[in-house]
Amino acid sequence: MNGLGAGRVAPQVGGGADPARETASVLVGTPVVPGVGYGPVVRPGTRPDVPTRGADLPEDARAAEKQRFLAAADVVSARLLARAESADGAGAEVLRATAALATDRGWLGAASALVDGGADAASAAASATEQFVAVFTKLGGLMAERVTDLLDVRDRVVAELLGVQEPGIPTPAVPSVLLARDLAPADTAVLDPALVSAIAITLGGPTSHTAIIARQLGIPCVVGVTGLDDIGTGTPVLVDGGAGRVEIDPAPERAADQVADAAALRRRTASWTGPGRTRDGHPVAVLANVQDGAGARAAAAGSAAEGVGLFRTELAFLDRDSEPSVEEQARIYREVFDAFAGRKVVVRTLDAGSDKPLRFAGPADEPNPALGVRGYRIAAQDPGILDRQLDAIALAARGSTASVLVMAPMIATVAEAAEFAAAARARQLVPGVMVEVPAAALLADRMLEHVDFLSLGTNDLTQYTMAADRLSAALAPLSDPWQPAVLALVARTAADGARAGKAVGVCGEAAADPLLACVLAGFGVTSLSMAATAVAATGSALSEVDLDRCRRAAEAALGAADPRTARERAAHILAG
Amino acid sequence: MNGLGAGRVAPQVGGGADPARETASVLVGTPVVPGVGYGPVVRPGTRPDVPTRGADLPEDARAAEKQRFLAAADVVSARLLARAESADGAGAEVLRATAALATDRGWLGAASALVDGGADAASAAASATEQFVAVFTKLGGLMAERVTDLLDVRDRVVAELLGVQEPGIPTPAVPSVLLARDLAPADTAVLDPALVSAIAITLGGPTSHTAIIARQLGIPCVVGVTGLDDIGTGTPVLVDGGAGRVEIDPAPERAADQVADAAALRRRTASWTGPGRTRDGHPVAVLANVQDGAGARAAAAGSAAEGVGLFRTELAFLDRDSEPSVEEQARIYREVFDAFAGRKVVVRTLDAGSDKPLRFAGPADEPNPALGVRGYRIAAQDPGILDRQLDAIALAARGSTASVLVMAPMIATVAEAAEFAAAARARQLVPGVMVEVPAAALLADRMLEHVDFLSLGTNDLTQYTMAADRLSAALAPLSDPWQPAVLALVARTAADGARAGKAVGVCGEAAADPLLACVLAGFGVTSLSMAATAVAATGSALSEVDLDRCRRAAEAALGAADPRTARERAAHILAG
Repeated sequence: MNGLGAGRVAPQVGGGADPARETASVLVGTPVVPGVGYGPVVRPGTRPDVPTRGADLPEDARAAEKQRFLAAADVVSARLLARAESADGAGAEVLRATAALATDRGWLGAASALVDGGADAASAAASATEQFVAVFTKLGGLMAERVTDLLDVRDRVVAELLGVQEPGIPTPAVPSVLLARDLAPADTAVLDPALVSAIAITLGGPTSHTAIIARQLGIPCVVGVTGLDDIGTGTPVLVDGGAGRVEIDPAPERAADQVADAAALRRRTASWTGPGRTRDGHPVAVLANVQDGAGARAAAAGSAAEGVGLFRTELAFLDRDSEPSVEEQARIYREVFDAFAGRKVVVRTLDAGSDKPLRFAGPADEPNPALGVRGYRIAAQDPGILDRQLDAIALAARGSTASVLVMAPMIATVAEAAEFAAAARARQLVPGVMVEVPAAALLADRMLEHVDFLSLGTNDLTQYTMAADRLSAALAPLSDPWQPAVLALVARTAADGARAGKAVGVCGEAAADPLLACVLAGFGVTSLSMAATAVAATGSALSEVDLDRCRRAAEAALGAADPRTARERAAHILAG
Repeated sequence: MNGLGAGRVAPQVGGGADPARETASVLVGTPVVPGVGYGPVVRPGTRPDVPTRGADLPEDARAAEKQRFLAAADVVSARLLARAESADGAGAEVLRATAALATDRGWLGAASALVDGGADAASAAASATEQFVAVFTKLGGLMAERVTDLLDVRDRVVAELLGVQEPGIPTPAVPSVLLARDLAPADTAVLDPALVSAIAITLGGPTSHTAIIARQLGIPCVVGVTGLDDIGTGTPVLVDGGAGRVEIDPAPERAADQVADAAALRRRTASWTGPGRTRDGHPVAVLANVQDGAGARAAAAGSAAEGVGLFRTELAFLDRDSEPSVEEQARIYREVFDAFAGRKVVVRTLDAGSDKPLRFAGPADEPNPALGVRGYRIAAQDPGILDRQLDAIALAARGSTASVLVMAPMIATVAEAAEFAAAARARQLVPGVMVEVPAAALLADRMLEHVDFLSLGTNDLTQYTMAADRLSAALAPLSDPWQPAVLALVARTAADGARAGKAVGVCGEAAADPLLACVLAGFGVTSLSMAATAVAATGSALSEVDLDRCRRAAEAALGAADPRTARERAAHILAG
């Protein structure tokens, strides 16, 4: 029994390989964050409609209505502060700041004045909020970032006034399992892993907002689960985020065992210090994805990442009206290189376009932006941007002790790879390309004649191979890197790399799935890059299996008919 | 020397395999319609801006302005009628109807009244048109379809009033070569192959509007050509639509030879009567794409198509508020089956969504509709539509002597294929699936465990494999079925079919490229389906080469680094 054992990923009830044999008390979905959570069901409260003002209140009722408003604001503020007490870190801060907004003098005054003028308390709260939102938005910057909190306060106060359940994530008395159709970004901002032991939602895929937040927080999570609506609030459920299972009202003893197994695994994970290798010593570098100096320093300090496998450079380019200068770019890049001094940093050149449009370059209004002028294609239309970025990377690399590599996103033809490689080598940079367009995977052997390494972007590779928008909730079952067709492309790309004696990494969400990470190692992938928070779980999982077992798991997954079977076969073999 | 000989596809000047060796007088683009055209350059006139009304004319100038307006309308009408004289068939009809609009009493009256009121003639023509467009649009149906013609008349009359070149396609005195940035649908409606001997445009890919129209009309066409703007109007050019070349001011004798070669090929093509087979007798069925009974009857009567390889059923579903009944559908399908009585008809189930949205089903406002809920995915969400369509197809097939097969579009997983196959077989229909999602090609062997045939949709397969919107002009060089990655998927799908002993056809635009058709045959594709107008050229090209040569051409194309090299290698081998 090891880290990929039955407690985490292999089915416990009813024999998962045959869905028909599942008992009625188990729901199955797409596993996105491994781990086991057990507890009573809680659900986010629905946000109330924004109230509109009705007829004026009689003058003699207004004083009482004002008191009612002020009392509601007090209750909301106190509840948020109490919750802040039991939270810690950033979550507590968010809660305290929100509580302060609920008793902000200006806001209370504006709403009170409206009630004095005859408005009911709920519509007064809404109108006062609208005024403040307009002001905050105009002020921009940090103030504008408070708009979401202000709307949250409004909803909580209005709910209190209407006597309905508080909207957003409730504050349960015991660690609970959160079930929902989907979670709004505002709801996830204050998720507390100490109180939410697992999440299961009806919508979403492995790259959905909820999945990404849950992964960051390390909360076990299953998405795309049908039937959650029928589970009564308060019912105890067990969520296995590695197996993608939601078990309703399990035997408490068995649930406790599974939670204990998972906790033991967490401890082993926490004590993992790298470097990335299988139990029998086969090296698979475990790297971090970062997007700026702060993130790089956090990853270097807080994880055992051996380097950066994906440095996303978009941040310096987005939300601005002109391209940053070479010097400005170099300063930004240098921060990341310095955080990983002496180690490897793979810089991805600008991957703008699609859902990350630039204001100063690239096309507008494409009918299918994900199939449009994005990534390297922007450089192809305006080579100056790429040239200057490569200049900046080379400038930052000079004098840094980091081992700097560069790779281009959205490469679809060998000619593009050759062109990029030439531009990089002219600046003494080591070139590679992302493999995220199916054509790049199909031609990996020829790409490798020009570049020194490949990096599989499994999110986009899945999107294009399955022709399914990765952000579409309706198509979430297709947006799964365990789809056999996607695994087939990954396997052949890794094999092409091995034949050429060149590195092939993975830098999509797939690398953060410990089970899939072992399968990827089995295909021959040489590095895995992921959110820094996922590094330990992946590294630890790798350290508990032999390479040969990874290979057998990979082969079994490759031959499966569908993602669930692939996952179950791999889990079975890896659990040994 | 055969139909794929040097006169058509192999480079003549400068050695096409090395672009650097091209002389300065040759421009190269993407070949889309084979054939050779020679003549002086003409260009479409720019459409004038829609004039806005300025200050009122003095009263004493209005009578003269009205005369000026009526004279301009007369000139435009007369010019269109003269052009109708030298055109024939549908083109002449379109021109005569447009001429009639230019002298329509109601329109002339409305514009004259505006001039009487002080408007200048150009703005009066524009305002009167606007009124009529509103009325026509409201009337709907056939009247609404005249709106484009009315706007065309407006532009022509306004241009005449302003003394600028007539917009749209000019009417040359001798057969000419049309060069443009791109052609508007209105411009292409009246293209006359007798007067336009070839087309070359700067934008567009093999599936662009211009390419499709040129293919329908059989006008040699090259798209994606840079440098056309620098060729003087009137300069003689030679366009080789098979090789993708535009030669500026060639030696007249050689040009004449090439035109003569092409004409000889056209004669051989015209005399081709099927069935589809290589010179040494290897059968490759040559089939037609149709979308309704009228199209099917025209294909059956006017081409040697051996059957229908792609019956698009969308027409019955689009532009209506509710689903057609099973009986209504069956009537429509039966028309097509009757046109091909005793022959094979492959019905593709509803491929709505993306750029063909339904009013009564499917999602709205997807960020990337081409990667959204389209094709079979609509059926997966609302199985009733597919069930009723299969009922209707089965009902229409009963009693018909056509051999009816059904296939589902946008299949991405083996489970979808299995599900569709079961639904079809339950109705005694022979099931197949489209291979247009890369995943379907990668899993073709497993798809064939469930279905009896595959049909490669090369347009979408190219779009997803290259992650390039097929309608994006900027990405046209990627939207090419000759891309080695696309050829690789086609080759492995055909090979999987051969191993399973099952049919694998091609029904994208690729089948209508005679050179590519021979390569596809070389891969082992068993049928080719295309616009009825392309059937003879493809059938004739196949009849002039041996299978072994097709195989060698296919292998050479597969190993090429880019589309142009692939095409040139195949051409070289096939020319023998």
